[in-house]
Order: sequence, then structure tokens, then C-alpha cells
Amino acid sequence: MTTLVFGHKSPDTDSTGSPIVWAWYLNEVKGEAAKPALLGEPNTEAAFVLTRWNLDKPEIISGVEAGAPVVIVDTNNPAELPADINDADIRAIIDHHKLVGGLETKGPIDITIRPLACTATIMYDLMGDDAAKMPEAIKGAALSCILSDTLEFRSPTTTDRDREVVAALAAELGVDVTEYAAEMFAAKSDVSAFSDAELIRMDSKEYEVGGKKFRVSVLETTAPQIPLDRKDSLMETFKTVEAEDGVDQVLLFVVDILKEEATLLVPNDLVKTVAEKSFGATVSGDTVVLPGIMSRKKQIIPNLTL
Amino acid sequence: MTTLVFGHKSPDTDSTGSPIVWAWYLNEVKGEAAKPALLGEPNTEAAFVLTRWNLDKPEIISGVEAGAPVVIVDTNNPAELPADINDADIRAIIDHHKLVGGLETKGPIDITIRPLACTATIMYDLMGDDAAKMPEAIKGAALSCILSDTLEFRSPTTTDRDREVVAALAAELGVDVTEYAAEMFAAKSDVSAFSDAELIRMDSKEYEVGGKKFRVSVLETTAPQIPLDRKDSLMETFKTVEAEDGVDQVLLFVVDILKEEATLLVPNDLVKTVAEKSFGATVSGDTVVLPGIMSRKKQIIPNLTL
Repeated sequence: MTTLVFGHKSPDTDSTGSPIVWAWYLNEVKGEAAKPALLGEPNTEAAFVLTRWNLDKPEIISGVEAGAPVVIVDTNNPAELPADINDADIRAIIDHHKLVGGLETKGPIDITIRPLACTATIMYDLMGDDAAKMPEAIKGAALSCILSDTLEFRSPTTTDRDREVVAALAAELGVDVTEYAAEMFAAKSDVSAFSDAELIRMDSKEYEVGGKKFRVSVLETTAPQIPLDRKDSLMETFKTVEAEDGVDQVLLFVVDILKEEATLLVPNDLVKTVAEKSFGATVSGDTVVLPGIMSRKKQIIPNLTL
Repeated sequence: MTTLVFGHKSPDTDSTGSPIVWAWYLNEVKGEAAKPALLGEPNTEAAFVLTRWNLDKPEIISGVEAGAPVVIVDTNNPAELPADINDADIRAIIDHHKLVGGLETKGPIDITIRPLACTATIMYDLMGDDAAKMPEAIKGAALSCILSDTLEFRSPTTTDRDREVVAALAAELGVDVTEYAAEMFAAKSDVSAFSDAELIRMDSKEYEVGGKKFRVSVLETTAPQIPLDRKDSLMETFKTVEAEDGVDQVLLFVVDILKEEATLLVPNDLVKTVAEKSFGATVSGDTVVLPGIMSRKKQIIPNLTL
């Protein structure tokens, strides 16, 4: 039975590319039948990466069959996976996020979680010498994942190991990192085709703080003015998303990759308080700029206070 | 702040020895202050191993302070750890059991779970070339852990990698594996000093099957007659343990390491049904022999049916 390899819902580049990398490894090196899958449409950056490296878009699945062999990558959070995930035969987990609890396995399996910026970096290390066997397209996928998750090393999640693996892959591929990352970020910034609700849910995780449920959404972009020009209509749509998703408040951070700052939309006093208490910000209007804030994992979530 | 390294409650040899191995590695190789700890008195085999290799008995702790740095080994089950474990600063988890869910970390950390027989085998691999730097006593601890968890390769949990690491360590130490394992198992079999309740809880894990809570206890021994001679009084004590621990039924498997079989005590019809449905056994008296059954993880738990 073919093992399905997939990442989280609302797939970004790492959750699109890492399953492709690992399915290649299982098939070609370990001799185990595997194929990558997606839990939704890839974002515009991930779609660009697939085209750039001439990779087939993995099949989009909505659930997994009971007992089906799966490998979970880039998450260990059941909320970001199919509802029936614990009925599957989870064969391995490779991730770089905090352990949230909730996944269960039927027996001991391979689980590797490392505090690196990107799943693909962990995979590169797990493959050892076999990483050299990756064909160009697979190397391209791995390189793209790391550049995406590190925002080309601007994110404070970046480790020396992420840099080293990018350097090695880029050299082998003959890719100019800065030029290629700029193309990726331009693709990610092209959000004109998305509705407000799609933008809010595109890269979003739920967290509970002080008894309130927040949907913490991030838009990483090199063109912040595009979403900020839509701020009134985005904030109006917060209410719809909150009602539909059963959360108390959407927090939308527009992250300017090049200026290395985030702009938080401030529709009400609750978000104003969050901005002041969490980031020491002084809020006057309906947006506030947070200098240096790039990473939900390292900077936003750990500081979230009510 | 010194990192505490510990395994599960009711420490066996792996949960006693692996913390010693990893604390050595953190201190001497990684330059991070660490010390091993125990969540209870080590069993008689683990106590023998400490004496044999002239190792200090780690401090026994009953809880951890909020925010204290800890490394958890040989379990990922909150039920087998201090009640306040999620308040600690969990720095790493190294384990070889199925993922049960429940542990949470504040950020991404190093988590390594592998389907090997023993935590010490995983540690040996994680250390890479640095494993050669282990002094004799630390190598002795690692060797003992693997021989204990594999029952000298008799357990079906044994992998080729466990065998290889034992072969390497035994050669470096000049230890005769069969002779040394026999000494360890003799120490484990010396249970005369323990009360019935202590014997029942010594190596025991709770599992829920068919809506009933079982305490699945295993006594691995080369002298099964010693506990079996006490079977009436043991079965009488089941009731006390069940009441005190809030479980429906104790299942006590006396595993004969040399004959490679288990004897299950059968105090009532419920256990009779479990024996018949789970292991296809034909039960006539108050005990039943289950040929080939050695491993709770691989053979007992996966088959438990009601």
C-alpha cells in the first residue's frame, strides 16, 4: 500500500515541497512506495515553486482512510490535519514545531522533531549521504522550502544548519539565492486573486490566550501595500471569519519581508490591548507597525498577552 | 541551571541507565550542565547495574519546578511522569514507545522517537562518533539498558541495531554478554523483598480496552516459580491495587525469560475472557501459560481484547 506523505492544511511552500522531497526519498532510496499529497490548494509561492522546478502538483486529499499508511511532515498538530488522522497508520512524523499533543500512534514509530527553521533541513540531515542523490527538481524543492521558511534568513527561526543546507543546495543547482528568493517572495505577494476571507485563513493558526481564542494570521509579503490597501474590508471580514471558525478574534499581521517589520490591523480595543501588552506598542489608528516582528513561532505566539 | 534527565516512574534499567548516559553526554560532550534523576527507587536489576559499574544512584525526585529544564527519556506518557511535567521547560525527548499524546512543549525542541528496543540504542546513534568517548561505566550502563530491554535479544522488540550496539559495547568492555545478562536477570528475579502490591506495580502500565481500565503488569524473571508460589496472595492483592489505583482489573504476566513464555494469573472470568480473546488461550485453572509471549509493547497490548 502506497504511503501518503503530507503536511498541514493551507499548504505553504514547506508543506508542499517537503512531502515531495520525502516521498522521493522513500521511493527511490528506501524502496518504499510513497506519494506526496496536499491538504488544500498550495499558496501562490508554493505553486510558483512547483512550476519553476517542473514538479507535478500533488493530489489534494480531504481525508485519509482508516489504516492507511501516512507520513506527517511540517506539523504535529491534529487541528491542522484531517479529522480522522488518528485512525490512519501513522508511520513517521518529521517536524520543526513545538509538540502540541493529540497525535497518537499504534506502535513505536520514527518521530523526528528538531528546532530548525524548516522541515526540509531536517530531511536533508536524515537522508545523510543519500541527499546527494536527489535529482535537480527535488533539490530545488528542498531549497525553496528553506528559503521560504527562513524568509531568506531574515526570520529569527533561522539556524546555521538552515544556512549551510541552502548554501550546499544552491551551489549544486547553480542558483543565485537572492535572485531566486526574490522571485518566490514576489509570487507569495501576488494575493490579488484571493478574497478577504481567503487571505485571513491562508497562513493562520489558532491559539488560546487568557481564555480567548485567537486566529493568528500572517501575510508574508514584499508588497505590504497590496493587503494594507484592503484593510477596511479585511477588518470587516474578521467578523465573518470569527463567527464561522468559532474564534473570538482574528489577528492579522502583514509581515514586510524586506523591511523586517509587521503591521497589525487593529479593528477594536481588544486587539489594541493585545498590541500594547504583547509588543509594547503604542497604538493610535487602526494599524500599528511592529519593528523586527517576522515570526509567529518565535516572536508573536510566545509574546501574546491579554 | 542544571538540566535534569529522567525516565519513567518505577524505573527499570533503561529508565535508570539512559538518564545517566545522556547526562554524561550533555555534560562532557555538549558542555551543558546536566544530571540524571529517578522518579522512584530503581528495580533490583537497575540497582545491580549501578553497583556493577560503580555508578552513583541518581537522586530520586518527586516533581519538577515550573520552568526547570528537563530532558525526558524512555517515555512520552504524561501518566508516567510527574504531574507538573508540562510546567517544566522540556528541552528534549528521546524515546522508543508509541506516541500517546499529552506532552506539550513551549517551543520547538529536539524529539527523537525510534522503533528500537531501547532508549540507549537511540542515544548511541544520536551521539555518533562521540559515543566512543564514553568512559567504561557509561558504556556499561548503555550495554545494560539494551540487554535489559531486549531480554538478551529474546524479546520480539529487538532490532538488528540493538544487537550491533551491544556487540560493539561488549567488545570494547570485554564483557561476556551471556554471562553478564544472566547476572542481570538473576538480580531482577530476586523479588523476595517486595510486597505483593510492590510486585504488581513494579513494571506496570495502564491501558483502556473496551471501556475497561487495565493495569498491565509484567514480571520478567528467570525464576518464575518465586512469584507463582505467591499467586493466591498476589491475586487477593489485585483488589486492593485496583481500588487504590482506580482501575478495573490488574493483569499480571510472569514472563519466563529463559523459556520465552508468560504465565498470566486468572483470578476471575473477566481475565479468563481476556486470555481467551486476546491470546486464543484455553484456560482451566487460575493460571494460563502463553507460549512465546515476552513483550507488553509488541505482543500483549496490541492483542488485548475484551
